[in-house]
Amino acid sequence: MGDARELLKKIDREVCLLRHAQALLGWDQETYMPPRGVEERAEQLAFLQGLIHERTVSPAVARALETADAGSGTGTEDPDGPFLRAWKRRYDRAVKLPAELVVRLARATGLGQARWAEAKKSSDFSIFRPSLEEILGLTVESAGLIGYREHPYDALLDEYEPWMTTAEVDRLFTDLRDSLGPLVRSIAGARQVRDDFLYRSYPVDAQEAFGRRVLAAMGFPSERGRLDVSMHPFTTTLGSDDVRITTRYNERNIKSALFGTIHECGHALYELGFSEKIRGTILADGTSLGIHESQSRMWENMIGRGMAFWTRWYPVLKSYFPGLLDDVPLDIFYRGINKVEGSLVRVEADEVTYSLHIVLRFLLEKDLVTGALTVKDLPEAWRAMSKDILGKVPEKDADGVLQDIHWSMGAIGYFPTYALGNLYGAQFHAALLRDIPDLEDRILAGDLAGVSEWLGRKIHSAGASRTAAELALEVTGSPLDSSWFVRYLADKYSEIYEL
Amino acid sequence: MGDARELLKKIDREVCLLRHAQALLGWDQETYMPPRGVEERAEQLAFLQGLIHERTVSPAVARALETADAGSGTGTEDPDGPFLRAWKRRYDRAVKLPAELVVRLARATGLGQARWAEAKKSSDFSIFRPSLEEILGLTVESAGLIGYREHPYDALLDEYEPWMTTAEVDRLFTDLRDSLGPLVRSIAGARQVRDDFLYRSYPVDAQEAFGRRVLAAMGFPSERGRLDVSMHPFTTTLGSDDVRITTRYNERNIKSALFGTIHECGHALYELGFSEKIRGTILADGTSLGIHESQSRMWENMIGRGMAFWTRWYPVLKSYFPGLLDDVPLDIFYRGINKVEGSLVRVEADEVTYSLHIVLRFLLEKDLVTGALTVKDLPEAWRAMSKDILGKVPEKDADGVLQDIHWSMGAIGYFPTYALGNLYGAQFHAALLRDIPDLEDRILAGDLAGVSEWLGRKIHSAGASRTAAELALEVTGSPLDSSWFVRYLADKYSEIYEL
Repeated sequence: MGDARELLKKIDREVCLLRHAQALLGWDQETYMPPRGVEERAEQLAFLQGLIHERTVSPAVARALETADAGSGTGTEDPDGPFLRAWKRRYDRAVKLPAELVVRLARATGLGQARWAEAKKSSDFSIFRPSLEEILGLTVESAGLIGYREHPYDALLDEYEPWMTTAEVDRLFTDLRDSLGPLVRSIAGARQVRDDFLYRSYPVDAQEAFGRRVLAAMGFPSERGRLDVSMHPFTTTLGSDDVRITTRYNERNIKSALFGTIHECGHALYELGFSEKIRGTILADGTSLGIHESQSRMWENMIGRGMAFWTRWYPVLKSYFPGLLDDVPLDIFYRGINKVEGSLVRVEADEVTYSLHIVLRFLLEKDLVTGALTVKDLPEAWRAMSKDILGKVPEKDADGVLQDIHWSMGAIGYFPTYALGNLYGAQFHAALLRDIPDLEDRILAGDLAGVSEWLGRKIHSAGASRTAAELALEVTGSPLDSSWFVRYLADKYSEIYEL
Repeated sequence: MGDARELLKKIDREVCLLRHAQALLGWDQETYMPPRGVEERAEQLAFLQGLIHERTVSPAVARALETADAGSGTGTEDPDGPFLRAWKRRYDRAVKLPAELVVRLARATGLGQARWAEAKKSSDFSIFRPSLEEILGLTVESAGLIGYREHPYDALLDEYEPWMTTAEVDRLFTDLRDSLGPLVRSIAGARQVRDDFLYRSYPVDAQEAFGRRVLAAMGFPSERGRLDVSMHPFTTTLGSDDVRITTRYNERNIKSALFGTIHECGHALYELGFSEKIRGTILADGTSLGIHESQSRMWENMIGRGMAFWTRWYPVLKSYFPGLLDDVPLDIFYRGINKVEGSLVRVEADEVTYSLHIVLRFLLEKDLVTGALTVKDLPEAWRAMSKDILGKVPEKDADGVLQDIHWSMGAIGYFPTYALGNLYGAQFHAALLRDIPDLEDRILAGDLAGVSEWLGRKIHSAGASRTAAELALEVTGSPLDSSWFVRYLADKYSEIYEL
């Protein structure tokens, strides 16, 4: 038994090294790789993926997991309990999917992304439809092979939000939708705020310099990470002491890089904060995408779009763009960066309406997976639900059903984690305020280290040793609930919109 | 037999992908990696090295090589002949070295590099001596295991310059030394040239912009490569269509980055020029380090330090540094960049004396390997040989026996390839002038593409399908000979120094 477990730990280490090498290949592809390198890079990535899969489903892993089950009773007293739990989950999912299906899905999504891009460009769903039908079919087949208790969507959701069920998301999102509706309507009826000044000409060099200053204040360690530029911002982990973020600069939009950088730094601090004893293991990972997103969104929205933060940082920001914001007082700036716009496009949505975009996708995905909705009828269903949930209908599919890349990548079950991030984030934020009552004063004084320290101790250090549900209970005292997020929004936006 | 060979081709492809992934890990470490990433990076590199070794010595490789030998007679008619020859060489060397010896050598050189750096810093050979004794012992042991016909040094040299023998290097270097001596003495007795203007203040941005312009003219394809900055310049191959070079800028030295960039681009064009049919295989590689170095040195010295090149490029260079070189006419500039200084330090040596530094190291290495010279007596032997070959003695070991990192890395047998690069380079250059009689005119007209095209067709495309000796014979019509290099130097420097 000891030997089997030691062997599993060796395999775990190898998989970790391979994943980090893969992460470097991916990072380089998005940042510095010369264009023609893309073909062989795909081959390199697929080959490393094969090495990882080979190790993950090896008989040695199965043996270690069997003897662990046999030897450790309930598993809770075993100091390796969380490690074995994480490996059992990884093994089970990997072993149930035949290589042939994985390859078919990879091909379908490879083609699907190209078809989606084409379809979006000409706003013509029919170009994407055959691909999506194939991808959905293969995804449903995967769900069946992976298995589930209640709903086939459970098997898909679990890939991104381990141990969370469809029923639970249903309950959370129903509450959320019921509460957000009235708030959104009140805001729509209130006097609107201006944000024109956010789209003046902000030199990119100064944007970058200010962004790096904020990063440093948040505690992003330059000796353990980097900030680079890429088309789509992301965070990636290349080693226990090497976590990199990217952003993109738009001279005519001060929000984009600024809040993007804070957002990615939130992710990065999580990846940098795993405790020494789980570093370099399967447990050195975000415990779920929802929890990961809670870290980025709490930083971006609850801290980074807060009045305390900007009371401290607005004069600094202005000093990086001499004269450019002289006509914009702090409170106007604060309202501007928090403007509620009710966009039809998710990635442009504000903090209040964002989660409704997710509810819409979740409801559609669920019906697609059970077959209650066909791909053929999807554009019409999107429009109907958009009317119902967002209160308006996209004029073209490019701004509706075709707006996101996710389905073309086979990422069905992923969307809920974005809204779960808001919910976990608000619940953690409330606990942070409970534990550090003078938090606002500290932020006013320029001290963001207190936030980082608390998050590190309470959330980051555990990595995937705790499930998301365990973590929520441990840190906040209660299970995940949408009321924290709703209360946070109501408080903040009542003041901004003078409701 | 067909199956075995197909399997070998699959392994070959895997090893190639792993080597390219390893190259990215190495490139990133020297360019962008945050400092704390270094520890896990070493682990990642070692792990990939293990995967490569595992595949290289696998029974499947042995089987494919056996059946190839059995089935293909002399091997020359087999279209896979060069592929099998390259794999046989790789397999033989890898399988003969027990993993335990490889690990001991890795440890000894890991420590050795630290000890060497320390010893060099305080110019105290005794700090490095125990490490070098251990490294030499293990290297000699390796040579014995690898096997050789005449001289244990053959087994070491072959690692870097496949199929070349110690006896051949001996012959070439003896000729070279005999011929260079009189030339060096004539130059020392001539009127010296000035080069003070090379050390004015040259803004780094302009140095980089000019360097990129030269790269483009040489045909370096920006869609298949990159130029970055690192402490020590290098070229590395991350994929068939992804070859990267680095340089370093020194504001007070216009030579360093400029000729460094041209040098590395010479290496890169070789790596980018392998023919389509050998891409992504073991044959997509420089056939020897000497041939590789011939490409970088021909570009750097024979083209890039030539009068035709600067007649075209000097006005362009001056335009990047307005006013800075107005007092320096072309012929003074040309003489300055070709100044012969007789430095005691190899990396600062000029084109004429450089090879003598290599002869010195080769003679010492040979004696160390046979035991005719002990590590204890090495500093004294260095001084004596320096007096004899370079005509002067270093005042301290930091500028003598401790100047190079190579021995601390276990790279014994490597140095000769630098001088072989000069010899191959001059012989190829003569063939180039034979094949393109109006070469000077073309270079004067700004056309470097003709050089690149000729090198690509004659040398690059074959990769490692031809041995260095085969290539020399094929391209130039005669075996490698030092007389071409000597004649090239005599012609060029007689004119510069008015001998």
